[in-house]
Amino acid sequence: MRIVVLAGGIGGARFLRGLKLAAPDAAITVIGNTGDDIHLFGLQVCPDLDTVMYTLGGGIDEEQGWGRRDETHVVKEELAAYGVGPEWFGLGDRDFATHIVRTQMLGAGYPLSAVTEALCQRWKPGVRLLPMTDDRVETHVAVTIDGERRAVHFQEYWVKLRASVDAHAVVPVGAEQSSPAPGVLEAVAEADVILFPPSNPVVSVGTILAVPGIREAIAGAGAPVIGLSPIVGDAPVRGMADKVLAAVGVESSAAAVAEHYGRREGGSGLLDGWLVDTVDEKAVERVEKAGIRCRAVPLMMTDHQEGHAAAEMARAALALAEEVRGA
Amino acid sequence: MRIVVLAGGIGGARFLRGLKLAAPDAAITVIGNTGDDIHLFGLQVCPDLDTVMYTLGGGIDEEQGWGRRDETHVVKEELAAYGVGPEWFGLGDRDFATHIVRTQMLGAGYPLSAVTEALCQRWKPGVRLLPMTDDRVETHVAVTIDGERRAVHFQEYWVKLRASVDAHAVVPVGAEQSSPAPGVLEAVAEADVILFPPSNPVVSVGTILAVPGIREAIAGAGAPVIGLSPIVGDAPVRGMADKVLAAVGVESSAAAVAEHYGRREGGSGLLDGWLVDTVDEKAVERVEKAGIRCRAVPLMMTDHQEGHAAAEMARAALALAEEVRGA
Repeated sequence: MRIVVLAGGIGGARFLRGLKLAAPDAAITVIGNTGDDIHLFGLQVCPDLDTVMYTLGGGIDEEQGWGRRDETHVVKEELAAYGVGPEWFGLGDRDFATHIVRTQMLGAGYPLSAVTEALCQRWKPGVRLLPMTDDRVETHVAVTIDGERRAVHFQEYWVKLRASVDAHAVVPVGAEQSSPAPGVLEAVAEADVILFPPSNPVVSVGTILAVPGIREAIAGAGAPVIGLSPIVGDAPVRGMADKVLAAVGVESSAAAVAEHYGRREGGSGLLDGWLVDTVDEKAVERVEKAGIRCRAVPLMMTDHQEGHAAAEMARAALALAEEVRGA
Repeated sequence: MRIVVLAGGIGGARFLRGLKLAAPDAAITVIGNTGDDIHLFGLQVCPDLDTVMYTLGGGIDEEQGWGRRDETHVVKEELAAYGVGPEWFGLGDRDFATHIVRTQMLGAGYPLSAVTEALCQRWKPGVRLLPMTDDRVETHVAVTIDGERRAVHFQEYWVKLRASVDAHAVVPVGAEQSSPAPGVLEAVAEADVILFPPSNPVVSVGTILAVPGIREAIAGAGAPVIGLSPIVGDAPVRGMADKVLAAVGVESSAAAVAEHYGRREGGSGLLDGWLVDTVDEKAVERVEKAGIRCRAVPLMMTDHQEGHAAAEMARAALALAEEVRGA
């Protein structure tokens, strides 16, 4: 079975760990978000790709969900001694090495997809990890700070400001001019199942869909497209998805996110099926009314380190895909 | 008093520590060798500049003479895990931060001289540290390995091969097209004393002199030029200077190095005065016969951390300069 997953960072990575348990023989291709990539200290940092790579490769800091296990912070301490920031972005020494290798390879002319493949030779994540694009796309967020409207890098909004101010708009700068990375459209076309894990629908999955060609490929794919709600009981499972959902005019509820993606069959959307958490049982009717097959199952990845809950979620998603296919 | 010093790495840095003790009120300008700079892991590493900066700024690993005190090696360990080398070049985490800041500033368009000044704002070395040039100069060494003649980067020759093969030639690639960094020629012209510390006469001082304009400026300067022998008792005080001296056809002795630099007054060389170690007392006559005023004083920097021996050496050099000036 060939499975394609559009993944952001922590939520996507933890779901993927479960998916690997649920479908150990599947060939999984992950299309990773690179809109939250950031150039720091002259180095190219790809937080979402690295979170997937470290999580599936056994190198993640399980507690915080990002960055490396057994991390030290000597380099950053030294950079601060030089007065070089930003200090609000946490980069550990082990993580720095990844960015050094990546930046060196990019500087030598390799595209990000080739660099990612090279980094994965060490981590052996057990999936094929593709960046959504080899081109530069940077998600910017329009905010008002001290009465002044300005655009900040997504990481500044997310990490520095902790999404504490309202987002007026989320713009994947450069997306319009970008192309899918090699292998992305082929993977979508050849997939047996396409999954949207409980990643942020705006700044993770939404950014991937903003790369011209990807949305169209998914809309036209032969495989069922199944999503899992990142909103449980009207609140994001983790992160601050509600903040950026508001920016695109979508209420923070499991049903609203499904409607935001929209129904594929006979519509202009992307979803054939949608999973909501059992606490959102009441959303099922609304989602099905929107033409999207919907089931309520537990969606909290409580034992993320073991991945059993995520595996159950993945099984439910694959079962819903079978149901769609059989329909 | 304005003193100009042409410095390589460890020997130059330790001598400078003594010079600061001997002449606490002097304005010292250091022209640093950049021919042993190397681009590693996509980062610009300047071993000699950093050794001077760390030594005078109190950050050096006193034991090994280069690199940072209390160093850790997490980044390098991670790079090795990615299969990215070279492993033979020792870069610690604290040191990495310096190279990251430097590379970022160079990438932003600042010349190396401005970058060095910025780095020194943290270290406050108590001297004005100038790279010999802002242009790229790389010392290559012609060697024969497994019967094949080839050129290797100086660091590969020095650190990886430990100068274990004969050097046929030492070539400062790019020197001919380079220009002195801003301030270099002015400092030489305005100097009251010019010193060649016991640095390597070929790959340290020799490389600095290979930058067009610097040799001529020193030859024509109004200030006395005094050198200190890096060879004591026919052997290098440290390092493997004998190997590269052989490559330029100079025997490894205190007198031969003085003759290699040559006498300035009425000659085509650079030296007015030369200090040899007391064990090389016999060299004094030969050096003076070559037209260079010579004294034998202790030249072993035995207490390099305190710098008293180096301070005595500096005092002897300054005294010899006075003697030359009074002559």
